[in-house]
Amino acid sequence: MSEKIVAGIDIGGTFTKYGLVNEYGKILKHGKVPTTDFATAKSFAAAISKIVLQEAAKFKDAELDGIGIGTPNGNYYTGTIEFAPNLRWKGIIPLAKLFMDETRLPVALTNDAKAAAIGEMVFGAAKNLKHFYFITLGTGLGSGIVVDGKIVYGHDGFAGEMGHTIVMENGRSCGCGRKGCLEQYCSATGITRTYLELISESGKKLKVASEKIDSKFIYEKYQQGEKEAKEAFEFTGHILGIALANACCYTSPEAIFLFGGLTKSGDAIFKPVKKSFKKNLLKIYQGKTKILPSSLPESEAAILGAASLIWNELKKFGR
Amino acid sequence: MSEKIVAGIDIGGTFTKYGLVNEYGKILKHGKVPTTDFATAKSFAAAISKIVLQEAAKFKDAELDGIGIGTPNGNYYTGTIEFAPNLRWKGIIPLAKLFMDETRLPVALTNDAKAAAIGEMVFGAAKNLKHFYFITLGTGLGSGIVVDGKIVYGHDGFAGEMGHTIVMENGRSCGCGRKGCLEQYCSATGITRTYLELISESGKKLKVASEKIDSKFIYEKYQQGEKEAKEAFEFTGHILGIALANACCYTSPEAIFLFGGLTKSGDAIFKPVKKSFKKNLLKIYQGKTKILPSSLPESEAAILGAASLIWNELKKFGR
Repeated sequence: MSEKIVAGIDIGGTFTKYGLVNEYGKILKHGKVPTTDFATAKSFAAAISKIVLQEAAKFKDAELDGIGIGTPNGNYYTGTIEFAPNLRWKGIIPLAKLFMDETRLPVALTNDAKAAAIGEMVFGAAKNLKHFYFITLGTGLGSGIVVDGKIVYGHDGFAGEMGHTIVMENGRSCGCGRKGCLEQYCSATGITRTYLELISESGKKLKVASEKIDSKFIYEKYQQGEKEAKEAFEFTGHILGIALANACCYTSPEAIFLFGGLTKSGDAIFKPVKKSFKKNLLKIYQGKTKILPSSLPESEAAILGAASLIWNELKKFGR
Repeated sequence: MSEKIVAGIDIGGTFTKYGLVNEYGKILKHGKVPTTDFATAKSFAAAISKIVLQEAAKFKDAELDGIGIGTPNGNYYTGTIEFAPNLRWKGIIPLAKLFMDETRLPVALTNDAKAAAIGEMVFGAAKNLKHFYFITLGTGLGSGIVVDGKIVYGHDGFAGEMGHTIVMENGRSCGCGRKGCLEQYCSATGITRTYLELISESGKKLKVASEKIDSKFIYEKYQQGEKEAKEAFEFTGHILGIALANACCYTSPEAIFLFGGLTKSGDAIFKPVKKSFKKNLLKIYQGKTKILPSSLPESEAAILGAASLIWNELKKFGR
């Protein structure tokens, strides 16, 4: 009997990664293509479909059963990308349909954070959990919320935008056009803003251009014992701890997984997050909710997430 | 064929209300008993069970099929009341079991806001909605969150405590022991605190004792055109609008229902809430989510909510 495999596709503003994944979460083959090479979503879908089909055909004992896609502004219900600011394709793009037309395979699509949350549930540390949050701390803050073992999509497909909860009235300007959004404080971008503010207040002169400052740089300074770097992690963790304590008031999860660039700083970020979380958590929730690093390898999470999305769909139909 | 009925019981710190409800949400008989009369939960369950069974027996053509209970700190999963600060019975009380022992009927239990949310879904304006919030603005702020047509209980039964999300760091002291909880701003208690602060700042002298000030009093002053009363409603609505805009980022609901004492002020509270909600709502959600008054009559909501909880359970088992 041939092995069943699926394709996981992760669309980013710059690169699109794809992989062929078996049902145990093993990536059999992967690669990447510049997203920006494609002026239209149709030409993109045609090219990626062709690659995926060709690669799958090389596995003699495997059968490609479906395609899962994680994409900015992806809508699970409609299979469309809706007004994604970081992609060349404007308006509402029927991307799942474009892939189905090319491949005649089942295609499912959602946004990247939700796909990664499903990846954690299908292949990772959330296998036996029914209620959890998956938070990505990258350029922005993305979130996948799982309730009763299912991703929360909301009535329109766009639930799970915790990064855009307002945590500071008239706070930092956000790309969404409003002010004080969580992701302007708690993300790689957020900690950088905090750090630059602290450096500026201290009167210190940076020896590198401010464009070169990122969460990795701040973590290096932290390791060197720099006061401002330490304060930047403390402040970021403090705000995130309150946000996660508030999140518990919504869906009372068993665990909150943190993922993405900022989590590479390990204890530098986890310690202040956990401290603030405990301090700000309502009494009835104390000691019940774990804050954990995602168990998915950074390099594989996006592909595994997209693949797990379609695995879940195929299971629903008993395939 | 006999008509099926259930009992809906709403436990409050002072009074317990009960009603016999048919499957169309008609209350056939109702009454109330002082909760504080009962030193033990066992004697309470025995007395209320007796009343409910006696009243049901008077309906010759009706058959009592189950009992639904809404109670402070009620846990749906375990049928227990856990550490309710406003009840005489301390610790963890197996209330559903106590009622089952007395009546040999199916019994379901949850907290009051969740019961009312189910009431709105079964008998009210949320009949066809799969994603909504039900917010009670009484002494505190209670919330029932519905996702995919089901109440969110969370892993421990205590999801839906929006009133205890921290909205103001180091803000007003809350009964929960922390500071800045939403319900200290947006509730009958919250608007009263705001109003008294505003009066105090204005240097005005109140002609009544401050214990007499409640949301009804403030609404009367509002109708008389008093500046401070108007500001109190504006501020309360402003904070609640942000909180509801943030709530959309979690579960993207079709509607948010507001219920309870404070909503009796009508436009005085709804107008500033809607204004702030629109201003603070993320662009992708704009125009999608309605803010509505609950359709349940104030006097009936608690009993209907408790009754709808057990109706829902009975349906699951095809009864």
